Amino acid sequence: MSEALRIAIAGLGTVGCGTVKLLQENKALLEARAGRAMEIVAVSARSEKDRGLDLKGIRYESDARNFATAADVDVVVELIGGDEGIARTLVEQSLANGKHVITANKALIAKHGAAIANASEENSLALGFEAAVAGGTPILGVLRKGLVANKIRRVSGILNGTCNFILTEMEKHGREYEDMLAEAESLGYLEADPRLDIDGIDTAHKLAILAALSFGTAPNMDAVDCEGIGHVTLQDVRYAANLGYRIKLLGVAEHYEDGSVAQYVAPMLVSHSSPLASVDSSYNAIEVHGDHVERVFITGRGAGPGPTASAVVADIVSAARDVRHAPFSVPAAELKPIVPASLSTIIDSYYLRVRVKDQPGVLAKIAELCSTHGVSVEELHQHAHEAEGAADIIMTTHEASWGAIQETARAIEALETSLTKPLTLRLVEA
Amino acid sequence: MSEALRIAIAGLGTVGCGTVKLLQENKALLEARAGRAMEIVAVSARSEKDRGLDLKGIRYESDARNFATAADVDVVVELIGGDEGIARTLVEQSLANGKHVITANKALIAKHGAAIANASEENSLALGFEAAVAGGTPILGVLRKGLVANKIRRVSGILNGTCNFILTEMEKHGREYEDMLAEAESLGYLEADPRLDIDGIDTAHKLAILAALSFGTAPNMDAVDCEGIGHVTLQDVRYAANLGYRIKLLGVAEHYEDGSVAQYVAPMLVSHSSPLASVDSSYNAIEVHGDHVERVFITGRGAGPGPTASAVVADIVSAARDVRHAPFSVPAAELKPIVPASLSTIIDSYYLRVRVKDQPGVLAKIAELCSTHGVSVEELHQHAHEAEGAADIIMTTHEASWGAIQETARAIEALETSLTKPLTLRLVEA
Repeated sequence: MSEALRIAIAGLGTVGCGTVKLLQENKALLEARAGRAMEIVAVSARSEKDRGLDLKGIRYESDARNFATAADVDVVVELIGGDEGIARTLVEQSLANGKHVITANKALIAKHGAAIANASEENSLALGFEAAVAGGTPILGVLRKGLVANKIRRVSGILNGTCNFILTEMEKHGREYEDMLAEAESLGYLEADPRLDIDGIDTAHKLAILAALSFGTAPNMDAVDCEGIGHVTLQDVRYAANLGYRIKLLGVAEHYEDGSVAQYVAPMLVSHSSPLASVDSSYNAIEVHGDHVERVFITGRGAGPGPTASAVVADIVSAARDVRHAPFSVPAAELKPIVPASLSTIIDSYYLRVRVKDQPGVLAKIAELCSTHGVSVEELHQHAHEAEGAADIIMTTHEASWGAIQETARAIEALETSLTKPLTLRLVEA
Repeated sequence: MSEALRIAIAGLGTVGCGTVKLLQENKALLEARAGRAMEIVAVSARSEKDRGLDLKGIRYESDARNFATAADVDVVVELIGGDEGIARTLVEQSLANGKHVITANKALIAKHGAAIANASEENSLALGFEAAVAGGTPILGVLRKGLVANKIRRVSGILNGTCNFILTEMEKHGREYEDMLAEAESLGYLEADPRLDIDGIDTAHKLAILAALSFGTAPNMDAVDCEGIGHVTLQDVRYAANLGYRIKLLGVAEHYEDGSVAQYVAPMLVSHSSPLASVDSSYNAIEVHGDHVERVFITGRGAGPGPTASAVVADIVSAARDVRHAPFSVPAAELKPIVPASLSTIIDSYYLRVRVKDQPGVLAKIAELCSTHGVSVEELHQHAHEAEGAADIIMTTHEASWGAIQETARAIEALETSLTKPLTLRLVEA
């Protein structure tokens, strides 16, 4: 057996503690599989408070950045977070000083992934970020290795457990969005800045990484069209259920024949017949369409100390095994810039819901506007809210372009009888 | 870029042809990802008949065994099949002569996997058999790498597309087993020896490989308790549906705390709430329970030229990238013999169906026998078949040992009123 791999862990939050515990609990198994001893030599955290960990013989470092130049460290595990600041400095300096880097930092990789990967390749170092996307679900390894033979056409998924929890609970228990948001907060499920979750930004980070690995493009967060779950009401969740769908926040990236790439995050209506529909609460799931493998679907826990540590430690074992894949499958220097596809020409079917004054002729007028804009209605329902003198008009459409549905929605909004901006969500079939 | 990887393909059946096509179609992409040129230098098949392939500049070899000593071959891809004969000789001789080996041969790996893996390790050669299990689903890579940090407790799945097709179509179209079996045959879905599919042997091969990789044990087909789908009637499929279940042929391997391993293949009733329930027709699916990652579920096409070639070529790319994992995760010499767990003590809930003479007191007698054997009934139904003077008694039980349910079934069978041997199937909840 070759020399022990010496590990420094920066950040002792949930994932950091989970990683220490996993490395200690499964030490013999991991070393047998890695073919090499592995030892934690140092940890770093804001304070030395008791976290229920056995840190005997492990050095405590108050400034994680010192790991980058520590002579006794082979691998730096960055679990601090944030796309700038200490995390970025630590990762860049560690690679510059010949240390392997493992990170769970999706924001950092989504923003600076290409440059960081390039630095790892130039120095023949391992760079692992499996834990950055979908927790314990080993989707990055699947794309990098298992599905490597395929031209990937589309990758999509449920990538944020908090939004999935909120939407699942709204449906299951008939609770309002604000109510569930408060509960998610009290359970500690929300990021420090909750907009990262509910506005879809966290999903966009992960989607940008998936798209890069799938299509050979540099991660590009700015090219992700991002819509959160804030406009989805309990009524929408119920209307969707009656139509045979469940509302999920999805990230979708698609690579078209002309080389352009669409990336969008939005709540969508997922048909009960799709495997994505049964992915509940804290589970994440990813569906990949490849030109030869057709469709592969994978689901697992998207967060939590155990599942995320499982991904972190898988990357550590790869580093110990001396495996060097290009982190984005092709060399970072060859990653192409994304040519964003025009979202308005993408064809889908849609759900449209608008609240209107409950008076004669409104439904006919809305149906006429759809027809004028070339949007063909598949199903149309009207739910009266008599006390308010209002009604919800709910419809699903046949296939149309996103552009056409947006124009239709704007025309409907402009009607004197419309009380809200129409909500337009894509339908996802099996 | 280093020298081209020179590939010889032995066997030009469906998967062989799919592999040639994939390597040619995605050549540029594969070389970018592998960081290395790859070329097919030779193929071998029983005849040189036209298969719609472009084989210009590729040598035809009538005896695949010559690849083992060919000076211009780096990787031998064995797609002949069979656990002995030419396939085994080719694989063993190729490794002995310094060639990497990729194979889709589940029977060979299930039977001789440990010795073959050992030969590959001794010569520092790649040995890939991703295509041997679940077609395009990259489950072996997931176990070897993505979930490497976990002590795997249980691995189970739907591993035979033909049985899944038969059971799915019986349910969907209300057709009898014999009828669907004939259709599967006419569609070319059955192995040359159909018992490999319907008696569960093919599933057992794949399960033995999954268990080996999951638990660090040598593959052991003989320790798989194997029951096929031949006793499942259309009535059972309907009774199951009424109870909220779908019948699937599952392979299950479980590693107990005492180090023993249970491996069994049988039709089981899968609850609609389990992701396995929605895996239809030619799809395969695997569920893995790890100590830290909890549950990971993956599904994809289990067969077909495209999906299987996707797995074969993924292994070729790994060989080109010069990646050397131990094929069974730990060195083959360290694989432990399986200590088979006693199946009779395993606790599950069950479905039991028996046809009886339709006369007073039968139901009470059966209920009494259950009680005598410590089997607690959860639900009990009786369906009369008046024309035959018979009735089906259908029940589900609370948790009991497999031993207790078998003793109960034997006692019921011994009743003068019983017309059939009772069918006992496990229940699988979400």
